[in-house]
Amino acid sequence: MIKSVNSISKKAGMAPGSLIHVGEPMQPESNIRLINYSEENIEEKQIQSFDEIVKYKESDSVTWVMIEGLPTIDMMTQIGKDFGIHPLVLEDILNTQHRPKFEAYDNYLHIVLKSLQSEDEQFNMTYEQITLLVLNNFVFTFKEKTDDLFQPIIDRIKTDRGHFRSLGSDYLAYAILDTVVDQYFILIDSLDKAVTSLEDTFLNSQSKEETPGTIRKIKKEIITVRKNISPVRELTVEMLHSESELILDKTHIYLKDVSDHATHIIDTIESYSDVLSDLLDIHATDVSYQMNDVMQILALYSTIFIPLTFISGIYGMNFENIPELTWGYPAIWAVFIAIPAGMIFYFKKKKWL
Amino acid sequence: MIKSVNSISKKAGMAPGSLIHVGEPMQPESNIRLINYSEENIEEKQIQSFDEIVKYKESDSVTWVMIEGLPTIDMMTQIGKDFGIHPLVLEDILNTQHRPKFEAYDNYLHIVLKSLQSEDEQFNMTYEQITLLVLNNFVFTFKEKTDDLFQPIIDRIKTDRGHFRSLGSDYLAYAILDTVVDQYFILIDSLDKAVTSLEDTFLNSQSKEETPGTIRKIKKEIITVRKNISPVRELTVEMLHSESELILDKTHIYLKDVSDHATHIIDTIESYSDVLSDLLDIHATDVSYQMNDVMQILALYSTIFIPLTFISGIYGMNFENIPELTWGYPAIWAVFIAIPAGMIFYFKKKKWL
Amino acid sequence: MIKSVNSISKKAGMAPGSLIHVGEPMQPESNIRLINYSEENIEEKQIQSFDEIVKYKESDSVTWVMIEGLPTIDMMTQIGKDFGIHPLVLEDILNTQHRPKFEAYDNYLHIVLKSLQSEDEQFNMTYEQITLLVLNNFVFTFKEKTDDLFQPIIDRIKTDRGHFRSLGSDYLAYAILDTVVDQYFILIDSLDKAVTSLEDTFLNSQSKEETPGTIRKIKKEIITVRKNISPVRELTVEMLHSESELILDKTHIYLKDVSDHATHIIDTIESYSDVLSDLLDIHATDVSYQMNDVMQILALYSTIFIPLTFISGIYGMNFENIPELTWGYPAIWAVFIAIPAGMIFYFKKKKWL
Amino acid sequence: MIKSVNSISKKAGMAPGSLIHVGEPMQPESNIRLINYSEENIEEKQIQSFDEIVKYKESDSVTWVMIEGLPTIDMMTQIGKDFGIHPLVLEDILNTQHRPKFEAYDNYLHIVLKSLQSEDEQFNMTYEQITLLVLNNFVFTFKEKTDDLFQPIIDRIKTDRGHFRSLGSDYLAYAILDTVVDQYFILIDSLDKAVTSLEDTFLNSQSKEETPGTIRKIKKEIITVRKNISPVRELTVEMLHSESELILDKTHIYLKDVSDHATHIIDTIESYSDVLSDLLDIHATDVSYQMNDVMQILALYSTIFIPLTFISGIYGMNFENIPELTWGYPAIWAVFIAIPAGMIFYFKKKKWL
Amino acid sequence: MIKSVNSISKKAGMAPGSLIHVGEPMQPESNIRLINYSEENIEEKQIQSFDEIVKYKESDSVTWVMIEGLPTIDMMTQIGKDFGIHPLVLEDILNTQHRPKFEAYDNYLHIVLKSLQSEDEQFNMTYEQITLLVLNNFVFTFKEKTDDLFQPIIDRIKTDRGHFRSLGSDYLAYAILDTVVDQYFILIDSLDKAVTSLEDTFLNSQSKEETPGTIRKIKKEIITVRKNISPVRELTVEMLHSESELILDKTHIYLKDVSDHATHIIDTIESYSDVLSDLLDIHATDVSYQMNDVMQILALYSTIFIPLTFISGIYGMNFENIPELTWGYPAIWAVFIAIPAGMIFYFKKKKWL
Repeated sequence: MIKSVNSISKKAGMAPGSLIHVGEPMQPESNIRLINYSEENIEEKQIQSFDEIVKYKESDSVTWVMIEGLPTIDMMTQIGKDFGIHPLVLEDILNTQHRPKFEAYDNYLHIVLKSLQSEDEQFNMTYEQITLLVLNNFVFTFKEKTDDLFQPIIDRIKTDRGHFRSLGSDYLAYAILDTVVDQYFILIDSLDKAVTSLEDTFLNSQSKEETPGTIRKIKKEIITVRKNISPVRELTVEMLHSESELILDKTHIYLKDVSDHATHIIDTIESYSDVLSDLLDIHATDVSYQMNDVMQILALYSTIFIPLTFISGIYGMNFENIPELTWGYPAIWAVFIAIPAGMIFYFKKKKWL
Repeated sequence: MIKSVNSISKKAGMAPGSLIHVGEPMQPESNIRLINYSEENIEEKQIQSFDEIVKYKESDSVTWVMIEGLPTIDMMTQIGKDFGIHPLVLEDILNTQHRPKFEAYDNYLHIVLKSLQSEDEQFNMTYEQITLLVLNNFVFTFKEKTDDLFQPIIDRIKTDRGHFRSLGSDYLAYAILDTVVDQYFILIDSLDKAVTSLEDTFLNSQSKEETPGTIRKIKKEIITVRKNISPVRELTVEMLHSESELILDKTHIYLKDVSDHATHIIDTIESYSDVLSDLLDIHATDVSYQMNDVMQILALYSTIFIPLTFISGIYGMNFENIPELTWGYPAIWAVFIAIPAGMIFYFKKKKWL
Repeated sequence: MIKSVNSISKKAGMAPGSLIHVGEPMQPESNIRLINYSEENIEEKQIQSFDEIVKYKESDSVTWVMIEGLPTIDMMTQIGKDFGIHPLVLEDILNTQHRPKFEAYDNYLHIVLKSLQSEDEQFNMTYEQITLLVLNNFVFTFKEKTDDLFQPIIDRIKTDRGHFRSLGSDYLAYAILDTVVDQYFILIDSLDKAVTSLEDTFLNSQSKEETPGTIRKIKKEIITVRKNISPVRELTVEMLHSESELILDKTHIYLKDVSDHATHIIDTIESYSDVLSDLLDIHATDVSYQMNDVMQILALYSTIFIPLTFISGIYGMNFENIPELTWGYPAIWAVFIAIPAGMIFYFKKKKWL
Repeated sequence: MIKSVNSISKKAGMAPGSLIHVGEPMQPESNIRLINYSEENIEEKQIQSFDEIVKYKESDSVTWVMIEGLPTIDMMTQIGKDFGIHPLVLEDILNTQHRPKFEAYDNYLHIVLKSLQSEDEQFNMTYEQITLLVLNNFVFTFKEKTDDLFQPIIDRIKTDRGHFRSLGSDYLAYAILDTVVDQYFILIDSLDKAVTSLEDTFLNSQSKEETPGTIRKIKKEIITVRKNISPVRELTVEMLHSESELILDKTHIYLKDVSDHATHIIDTIESYSDVLSDLLDIHATDVSYQMNDVMQILALYSTIFIPLTFISGIYGMNFENIPELTWGYPAIWAVFIAIPAGMIFYFKKKKWL
Repeated sequence: MIKSVNSISKKAGMAPGSLIHVGEPMQPESNIRLINYSEENIEEKQIQSFDEIVKYKESDSVTWVMIEGLPTIDMMTQIGKDFGIHPLVLEDILNTQHRPKFEAYDNYLHIVLKSLQSEDEQFNMTYEQITLLVLNNFVFTFKEKTDDLFQPIIDRIKTDRGHFRSLGSDYLAYAILDTVVDQYFILIDSLDKAVTSLEDTFLNSQSKEETPGTIRKIKKEIITVRKNISPVRELTVEMLHSESELILDKTHIYLKDVSDHATHIIDTIESYSDVLSDLLDIHATDVSYQMNDVMQILALYSTIFIPLTFISGIYGMNFENIPELTWGYPAIWAVFIAIPAGMIFYFKKKKWL
């Protein structure tokens, strides 16, 4: 995750706006779908050549161009030329290692998001970058790979004629934002399961040895997740305060809702982070207390035997005429029992045992 | 508490404004009461059908609709249609896992609060969500369950004709806010008792073993409590700075009072949190000092016996002609007494004992 | 101190502006003095009935009403009615557990302060709440008990005809603020003595055992003190930026002076807090280093005896024909001396001793 | 790095604007190159005398004067006089130990940057100060030494006639900023390699002894790097908000891009810093756990032998008539085996072993 | 340093603006010099009576009155009366324990600074308060003692006729500020030497015992230094944003330069503070690691001897017919050598040794 910045260094020295791919491509070839909808009509098709897209430019209805996988440099150049997108924005789209951000230009909005998916139980995450270009009646989305993330939106476009299809490209942009943020809730669901299971393991004292490693691993993932989600809240707030004419007043309440969700998610993630820090603290304290207990018990144990060993040493000396030696062997056993008993009694009284 | 976000993930992919229940319902069936009051009249009744509510819409007097328990989807849809409430607000009301917040719309205010109650001595809390919709002359309150939390307000409406009943729906909203915040004071009362009793236990050194667990538990509860109370301060401040015409100037001083109370409560909670952190620190230090003391005493004890055991070993050797062996057994006892005495004297001088 | 919020919980459910006493009364009966002054005249008297106060309302000269001890509910109601004070302000005055604050109303200012006094050498503090109501030509002060805190102000009113008596009620309010803040300097003086004496004790290594407890106690008091003084800085700043006509321009420089003093005091208190934290750290480090030293010396001591005991064990074995036994007893003593000497030399070289 | 401030102390007491060199010179003699370009023409030459520069002052095309190495006091004085640069700015240019900053004057901009280069694998960094003076159609750059850092920019000027050469001096300033910031990406590349290799070393437990030293060294370098890069973000933001007419509107998007890069770099550096702190923590914990483990095992080991040694002592005593002595030697071996076996079983059950 | 607030407590209860000395006087008698300069003339003389100063009031040239040592109450009163200085400002001047600050009044500026000097190698600092009153064409400076701090300024006034003497009292004020801030660079120079020498001592492991004490001492001094320098940055910023007509536009660039220097100094001081904290951390870690190492080696050493001592005990038992006793004494020595060799091999393999 932190390595995201590496390969960008190869651009050092190049002119700004140079269109080259940065980041490891997830899917080498791009797949382009187009949906054109208005309250009356809806049209969906697979795009082969860029010219097919351009002719929708004049249409009054909303056109959504979904580009999945790595777009070609040629296509980016054409989009730039035909839709008036700045070369630096095109450069950003080709760089899949970008921070989430929102930028308003005169005639379009540029939104960068990260879709997060947990691949397995170990929280090995994939971070897919999703870029939106929102023009008047035109939305481009760039995804790194083909999947069904946007399927629910397409379904709603098809079915929700009265509401969705009567609204403009800004509502479509909101719907995409909302879908990505809803994904985060699923992530948090599995995070919750992992943390709860850790807490249980912890309270039942099973396998404490392996716990700190797992906790640290999840904590590290949480930091990355937060780094990718936090800017989303900022960008929704920036969208709300943007004066762009592309965002209609009636869309504000929807953006505010997304912003609330993002806040909720970040709050929740921070709570989990705190819980994990606490678990690590408690673990360290417990290990140290337990270690102390063992050492103290062993020390007390040695302490009990020390005088006994000394006494046995005394009567192993070869002095002539040690009078006690004649008092009989059982007497020494009385001593060997009385001394530890006294010491144990004393330690118990002192609450050392 | 942190799990609050879980079940919301099932909404991922649904259209915004989809009305479904989120969160575990406390009380499956809803109970609706209506109070309509003006300076002259007061009317209170149980509502069976939604139509009974609608006809109060035209009335000049203030109408308060209390919905306790889970409202039906139908009812929400009707409220939305008849009172012009946005679908996203209705969606929020059905989600009982929301953060406290304040939103001003053109013709109504949307307020979400949490009522906190400590179920037992162990600070097992229940968090009940209370939502207010404040319209001109109309207030809807949504509570998760039926209880007598609002009873004092109803009593005051009935008795305080000159003041309460002469004021509008914004004063009623304030009265509800004030009642919820006053609940927090009761919580803090019991928190105080718990912390004071912990401090006493602590100073009297009884059962130190169990203290850290209890402290950590209360600290964790305090974090959740703060997370639910902090936004209340923010929302009162937002209400004060809101330009909504629904909040009259003369209500500002009351809102400021609630805001002061919330500030006071948060300050107090933070103090308790600090006190508990301090107790944990002191506990850790005390345990470590006590452990050190025990280990040091045992180490000194061993140290005293080490040379004695060595000496007894010397005279257990089978050398021929050890001259000391003939000096007589009592001489060795003089050594066995002189050495520890000298060492204890030395340790005492060094302040090790 | 933290308990301040407790008894307020008994108000939960009552109407706002309900006048009941909150907090433990210091002095059950109230004593009322009145000073009326102008550049020409000065009049001072003890007040028995509230009517005596009201008649000064029309006077052009400044009237100062000092209410010491618990005011009766009746009196508060009368002040509210005759001077137009809001019921919530009256409620705040009766609650002696309020945070310091400043509020500007249309025709009066409401200021809450805490006067701090250290009762003894142990920093057992008393916190007396002082409330000011500043009207045009009228100042009410509410103190919890009768003492001579305000005596210097009264003396200056009597003597400083040209300056003090020519200025209005805002200057009197400033003079009271200044007097209370000057009290804090006295507190800091004794705090300085306590901290300096702690530092001396510390450097001279006397009675280190008892130091941490004392440090923690003073630190805890400092937290409470800061919690009561910090809002005073804020309130002076708010007074400076207030647009109330009751605060004349020429009084601003005086308020700024008080604000500077409060800043200075808070800075100083924070310095002491830092010094105490440092002392606690140094103490913990010292205890741990000293403990380590003792343990290390004892460990080295044991280490020296271990091989000697082993050797004495060898020659206590009952093997037949141990040749060394015939080499003579003094030879073994040479070994018993050479081994420790060598080890001590080695440890010294390694800087372990 | 921290020493940067030292030699500036020799200026104490001098008049402001006194032109003397501060900081150790990297290259004693200065080398001056000049590039003059417009859309039509481009001219590049080596400058010997300052007069050659002055005559470009009237030209409409953009002139870039690159001064590499230590400029002479004379030259600075001449620049000040002929181009109207304030003496304090000239003083700043001669001081190569300045913080990065941006200042807008009436007719020119003053920008100070640091170019960072990692000399070797050990992150021994060189910090070269780069100062820009941006006038209308004139840019001065002051570098501490001659290298090819600006070569890509010169190449682009030569080739990119339509874009680069059609833009003014503010675009040239941006191109230089961009080049310096791109250098940071290279630095982060090598930082990434170092941190990743550290993490690997760490997980494979090789040479843990040397790790903390390396981590601390890199952490210290990171602090210095951040101290030099952080102000670059601030200065780009200040440039964006500057109202100077020298920065054209169409350059803003480029500056925003640099600002985004700087933000990205600082975020990444902070991530590495966190990773290193975590590694140090984990190392400390691991060392302490491992130490605890060893000590505990040794303690248990001693514990097992303690009773055995005591028993052997018993039967070394010279008492008359010890009955066990006649039970035969193998019996005692049964005891010597049974006791440790029992203890090991007990320790295993207690999970101490 | 922290005690600065003590003696001010004796003012509690006095009227504001009461002129009494606060703080320990450095130099009981005051020495007054006056310099009057314009572009044409310069006059410097020793002042005996205040009347000599007053007559310069009408002059168009700039007059600088340097008061060194404790000014008399009479003089302060006269300055107040003749130059219209507010009593609270006069009171501040007499209090040499003030925080650095800037205040703009209608017809004068009030600036309080601290000049810092390190008395010896041990960083025993003297803090001299310097107060400036800047009027139109008149500057008063109050220093606590007579020294040559301002000599470079006087020299520049005498020599720099064209620049310095052509500028007004605000440039003189700047020159004084600049001189005081330049002093801080000298301080940082010696701080750098001390820290570098500490780091060297540290890396060469000499006298680690004494290092923590020295580090803590320097850290404590740094805190005090920062407390006195930080407000200087704030005051220069306040001067820059002040709307006082006494600060001319052309002086702004000079003030900005001083502000930059102050920022640089505070940054550098914070770096040193961080370096020292790191050294303390490293020291604590090193001590703990070294202690652990010693304890571990000793524990291993004991562990080796434990079984040997036990074996020697076995063959010291008085059992009849111990068969091994007849196998010959050299056999036991084989065991005594084989066991430690095996253990050392095992410990080495486990990397415990």
